[in-house]
Amino acid sequence: MKRLGKPFTFLPAGNWLVLLVCLFIFSAGAVQAEPRALILKPFKQLSDESKECAACHKDKSPGIYQQWGRSKHFGANVGCYECHQAKETDIDVIKHENVNISVIVSPKDCAQCHNTEVEEFSQSHHSKAGQIMGSLDNMLAEVIEGALTFNGESPVAVNGCWQCHGSEVKVLSNGDLDPATWPNTGIGRINPDGSLGACTACHQRHEFSMVQARRPEACGKCHLGPDHPQKEVYEESKHGINFQANVDRLNLDSSKWIVGEDYDAAPTCATCHMSATRELPITHDVGDRISWTLRPAISEKVDAKALAQGKKVKPWQDRRRDMQAVCSACHGKPMIESFYKQFDSLVELYNEKFARPGKALMTVLAQEGLLTAQPFDEKIEWTWFYLWHHEGRRARHGAAMMAPDYTQWHGMYEVAERFYMELLPEFNEILEQAEHDGKTESVAKARAVLAGILESAEHLWFSGNEPDDVRTARKKAQAEFQKRYLGN
Amino acid sequence: MKRLGKPFTFLPAGNWLVLLVCLFIFSAGAVQAEPRALILKPFKQLSDESKECAACHKDKSPGIYQQWGRSKHFGANVGCYECHQAKETDIDVIKHENVNISVIVSPKDCAQCHNTEVEEFSQSHHSKAGQIMGSLDNMLAEVIEGALTFNGESPVAVNGCWQCHGSEVKVLSNGDLDPATWPNTGIGRINPDGSLGACTACHQRHEFSMVQARRPEACGKCHLGPDHPQKEVYEESKHGINFQANVDRLNLDSSKWIVGEDYDAAPTCATCHMSATRELPITHDVGDRISWTLRPAISEKVDAKALAQGKKVKPWQDRRRDMQAVCSACHGKPMIESFYKQFDSLVELYNEKFARPGKALMTVLAQEGLLTAQPFDEKIEWTWFYLWHHEGRRARHGAAMMAPDYTQWHGMYEVAERFYMELLPEFNEILEQAEHDGKTESVAKARAVLAGILESAEHLWFSGNEPDDVRTARKKAQAEFQKRYLGN
Amino acid sequence: MKRLGKPFTFLPAGNWLVLLVCLFIFSAGAVQAEPRALILKPFKQLSDESKECAACHKDKSPGIYQQWGRSKHFGANVGCYECHQAKETDIDVIKHENVNISVIVSPKDCAQCHNTEVEEFSQSHHSKAGQIMGSLDNMLAEVIEGALTFNGESPVAVNGCWQCHGSEVKVLSNGDLDPATWPNTGIGRINPDGSLGACTACHQRHEFSMVQARRPEACGKCHLGPDHPQKEVYEESKHGINFQANVDRLNLDSSKWIVGEDYDAAPTCATCHMSATRELPITHDVGDRISWTLRPAISEKVDAKALAQGKKVKPWQDRRRDMQAVCSACHGKPMIESFYKQFDSLVELYNEKFARPGKALMTVLAQEGLLTAQPFDEKIEWTWFYLWHHEGRRARHGAAMMAPDYTQWHGMYEVAERFYMELLPEFNEILEQAEHDGKTESVAKARAVLAGILESAEHLWFSGNEPDDVRTARKKAQAEFQKRYLGN
Repeated sequence: MKRLGKPFTFLPAGNWLVLLVCLFIFSAGAVQAEPRALILKPFKQLSDESKECAACHKDKSPGIYQQWGRSKHFGANVGCYECHQAKETDIDVIKHENVNISVIVSPKDCAQCHNTEVEEFSQSHHSKAGQIMGSLDNMLAEVIEGALTFNGESPVAVNGCWQCHGSEVKVLSNGDLDPATWPNTGIGRINPDGSLGACTACHQRHEFSMVQARRPEACGKCHLGPDHPQKEVYEESKHGINFQANVDRLNLDSSKWIVGEDYDAAPTCATCHMSATRELPITHDVGDRISWTLRPAISEKVDAKALAQGKKVKPWQDRRRDMQAVCSACHGKPMIESFYKQFDSLVELYNEKFARPGKALMTVLAQEGLLTAQPFDEKIEWTWFYLWHHEGRRARHGAAMMAPDYTQWHGMYEVAERFYMELLPEFNEILEQAEHDGKTESVAKARAVLAGILESAEHLWFSGNEPDDVRTARKKAQAEFQKRYLGN
Repeated sequence: MKRLGKPFTFLPAGNWLVLLVCLFIFSAGAVQAEPRALILKPFKQLSDESKECAACHKDKSPGIYQQWGRSKHFGANVGCYECHQAKETDIDVIKHENVNISVIVSPKDCAQCHNTEVEEFSQSHHSKAGQIMGSLDNMLAEVIEGALTFNGESPVAVNGCWQCHGSEVKVLSNGDLDPATWPNTGIGRINPDGSLGACTACHQRHEFSMVQARRPEACGKCHLGPDHPQKEVYEESKHGINFQANVDRLNLDSSKWIVGEDYDAAPTCATCHMSATRELPITHDVGDRISWTLRPAISEKVDAKALAQGKKVKPWQDRRRDMQAVCSACHGKPMIESFYKQFDSLVELYNEKFARPGKALMTVLAQEGLLTAQPFDEKIEWTWFYLWHHEGRRARHGAAMMAPDYTQWHGMYEVAERFYMELLPEFNEILEQAEHDGKTESVAKARAVLAGILESAEHLWFSGNEPDDVRTARKKAQAEFQKRYLGN
Repeated sequence: MKRLGKPFTFLPAGNWLVLLVCLFIFSAGAVQAEPRALILKPFKQLSDESKECAACHKDKSPGIYQQWGRSKHFGANVGCYECHQAKETDIDVIKHENVNISVIVSPKDCAQCHNTEVEEFSQSHHSKAGQIMGSLDNMLAEVIEGALTFNGESPVAVNGCWQCHGSEVKVLSNGDLDPATWPNTGIGRINPDGSLGACTACHQRHEFSMVQARRPEACGKCHLGPDHPQKEVYEESKHGINFQANVDRLNLDSSKWIVGEDYDAAPTCATCHMSATRELPITHDVGDRISWTLRPAISEKVDAKALAQGKKVKPWQDRRRDMQAVCSACHGKPMIESFYKQFDSLVELYNEKFARPGKALMTVLAQEGLLTAQPFDEKIEWTWFYLWHHEGRRARHGAAMMAPDYTQWHGMYEVAERFYMELLPEFNEILEQAEHDGKTESVAKARAVLAGILESAEHLWFSGNEPDDVRTARKKAQAEFQKRYLGN
């Protein structure tokens, strides 16, 4: 990685380097009256080094050359060398055609010009995505699904987890990047220079196009699939429908790109989570407008963990207010507020009816020693994981972004089936075995937890103890439906 | 909701209202020699009320203002007030800047100009989608997956079911719309004025663009997912492939939009189910060209229920003839007819091999009291529901629209597994328990039903009773394959 | 099917036929310095027969007429008759308006002009896709999921399998095409003239557009879904993301279409598997650049089967080299080579940890007579099939094309669950039953196979026998994660 003088200062750095001046017209305060515009003064000419790179790579890898040719970098005389140059002492420096370069361009490098963006990004949860390496998911990759067969790493982590979360890029003794850790553009990549992140996770090489990064597919690189189908959810929503129908009218190549000013036919992921509104500047801290975290088993307000730890972070109420500022470009206040009530109601229902009870069941099993210490060697552990990590998230994300099929058929319907048809029977089986093994006291404690759950109003139906009037009303409605639709 | 004089008549309605004349050049008969064109005479100028709305909303919610600015409504001087005005006595009237308006614009409102479309829509199954509220699915939402925690409604219904099917919009005592029932644009919405439907389900606010509504994503708002993946099925089909490759040539913004005249590179959902052909006018009764209903457990011809009830509806043969008129824009008669034979064969196979037997098994269990009265508290109830409601529909929809992967791997493969590996074993388990409980007679009856199924030709293989010659032929073919492909 | 004189020669064929000259400037060697351009000399005018066809079909099926009007065929005066003409003796000849034609245009017909493409295609695995008819999958369609109810064929095969793999098109005694076997455009179709394939599988009628065929949706007709989600995998990958963002810049309508020369913003499926590079000509043998076959339960190098049979085919190393030539248009050598190491590592891990052990378990059950001879009548057979045919392929395809969610959550995560939570318990259940039945020796043999698997390093964790240091390290990492993210 190169260092153009000290990061975040702008000094001439030798006779080859044209003075680069980055002017940030507006400062990066959280909420501003006017959107921030970022103006970067270009180099006067392309450096001799970059000219040399280009002369050869034009033939060797014409795609890169042409992509760069379409980029804003080209217009600003920012060439290969400006980004890839490295110091003799950089851990990942290589000699290439007698020039010190590094293959990886890290956020530290990008921050030479784009310091505000990197600063914001560094505050984000995105930048910490590499912490997955110490998580349960990582154990899945290393132990349960995989094995440490590829330079001491698990191919599942290498090809799976890390491609989104980021690897810890290692330099081999011969100077090569360890192929188990690179190629990698995971958003929380731990770079050889110690910086966190990979700007190319979203801004793909070598055009770094705004249009590409603002499209929903950019986020869909990682935010899709059975466990976090944000892309699919968006596509189902009216926002996504309007995106498809109106993509040519969105002015995706406008630098300013203020919703309600530059476009209004549809929002993309970037619109709501990052981009400028009439009141707010763009931000590269993608969690900045999120009020709930729907990631964990039990949903929390996004600042809850920090508050519990005595940390001061932007309160969820402020984040929600900022998201609502986005909505207000196209929606009236009653609609926005009522939408949030609907969304909250689903999250809370999921939390109270399934997540807390499920967690309580798993906790009492663990506390009473009715599970092995080894995760994922017992069926109920997979069951619980599917419930919250897959189906429960689908339901919550569906509600968050108005995709009813994800809320219902991909979501709550499957949550309920998992809970009643798998989690409860497997819980009971464990208790039966434990009873047989003479663990009477533990079983009694676990049974009490279960009984507490099944006696709560929302679970009474399952034991056939629903109040008579409710049952009668339901049967009547059902009979009417049967007659109307099914003729029986 | 406003009332411009009496609905479906065109009277001056006060000194503020320009005479609105809706001329329908062709009447709305089922089959016509020429496609119907709908000509609406615009207002001479924008009303003072709408000018006032616009002046303020231009700043407050510029998206709406701009969307409207691109709409045909703008060109016709149909402004905010023309649609949102309300009478003092309307149940959902609110005073907004001293003007009586209602937030919801219902089909009754739209019908002031677009009466033919609303009339057609009112005939459709779409308009009755809110009847789900008395169905099994609704019990799923209210009791099994959810609970009545949000203003007496279940958040699962609010965020899930109703967003497609429609809510019953309620007005709170303070005049606000009950947030448990609105925002909602479900296609069968029950509006405060008693009308059914939400035109914005497909024609999204506030541009109401034909292009948007004619694209497949519009229908994909609801017609997608594990239980009715019409969108995914279309995307796999050659029709969907050609749509992607040719969307810019489809003249989606042509008012006439007659397949075979205005476009031919690909059909969208709208083309086949609604839009004009050289012989047929457009229709907003989307079931008008459908011959099968693939929704229920056992597929039926679409008019079967009505006939059984002595009602007179358009016969399925006529509906199929009309659909084939669409096909004929691009396909020859032999292909069209042979396609329908293929499609019918799959539906009938599904019906006879899995749906009727499955239903018979469930019915005998219920009749003999071997199931509780409570739905979804026993595993086999979920199993059967998955079989017909999810996998069985996928198979049938796949065949209906030529998406082989949905017919086979998302469909019949999973139907078969569900039937043989889940439904039958769970049925047997129930009988074993019942036998143990001494219900000998009931068990005998249920066993007889099962035996009848397993002795039928298409199920003989499962008991190892396949005729020898068939087995021999199959083994030979398999051995050849193994040799050819797998080398073992 | 017509025969324009002898195939692959170009003779005047009667006074109606203009001399057709096909000049192939470059020969079709495997690797060439320059990409092959194919120049076909057009007819001087449209034939009288085609004029007559067009005059009537312009009204009867205007879509076909217009599609043809946009095609290159139109410009070259290749009309309906040039492709659809048939000889009196052709098995599928029909008299249509007093002219001998056949409905099906087979690769033999297309080869009159496009002989190189058809020759290449004939070498491909694609052309042999109809061999499925002798496979296990076919038994699924005919026996397990279906029944021979449609002209002696299974509707599941007709609507499912064959629509991708190809049917054996049969001509009924009245001259009609058997509707159970046609319409069909499966890529391995067995045509009445004995030729294999259907060019319209990818080049859709009647425009035969390059743009359409080069788009990923063309391949997605069949390469999608739970068992081979190449389309979904591509869409998740950066290649697919860039396709969406840059489709208008890809010059998809350029005849030459050389990656790195004509376009570089994104590759499509065709780019990597078929299309020209600066070193390679296009090929219609889509397996030509593939090094692994990821189709079978245990992945193999693509030439392994042929080598084992003593056949000479293009070695996998050469195929990989050619694929890397594609990559090099946009990527440097270290990246390409390291990517392949990552990909290989995943395939090998899957093979060694799950595929070989799973296969060994299934094999010992079969050998010891612990399974019936009937496939798919026992749960474990479905379990194993899901593992390799669905989930195992998803994981491998995900790694092959850089879609981490498919590698992990759609792939290895589900492979692991299937293996530990279903395959192993079902295996043990079978052994318990066999033990109960007194098959002591067989059980001992099967137990030995299982023990061998569970004692291998990568499975030790499952029996709780993971070495202490590994467990300790993992628990520490997990505790750190819990603290960091979950606060407990």
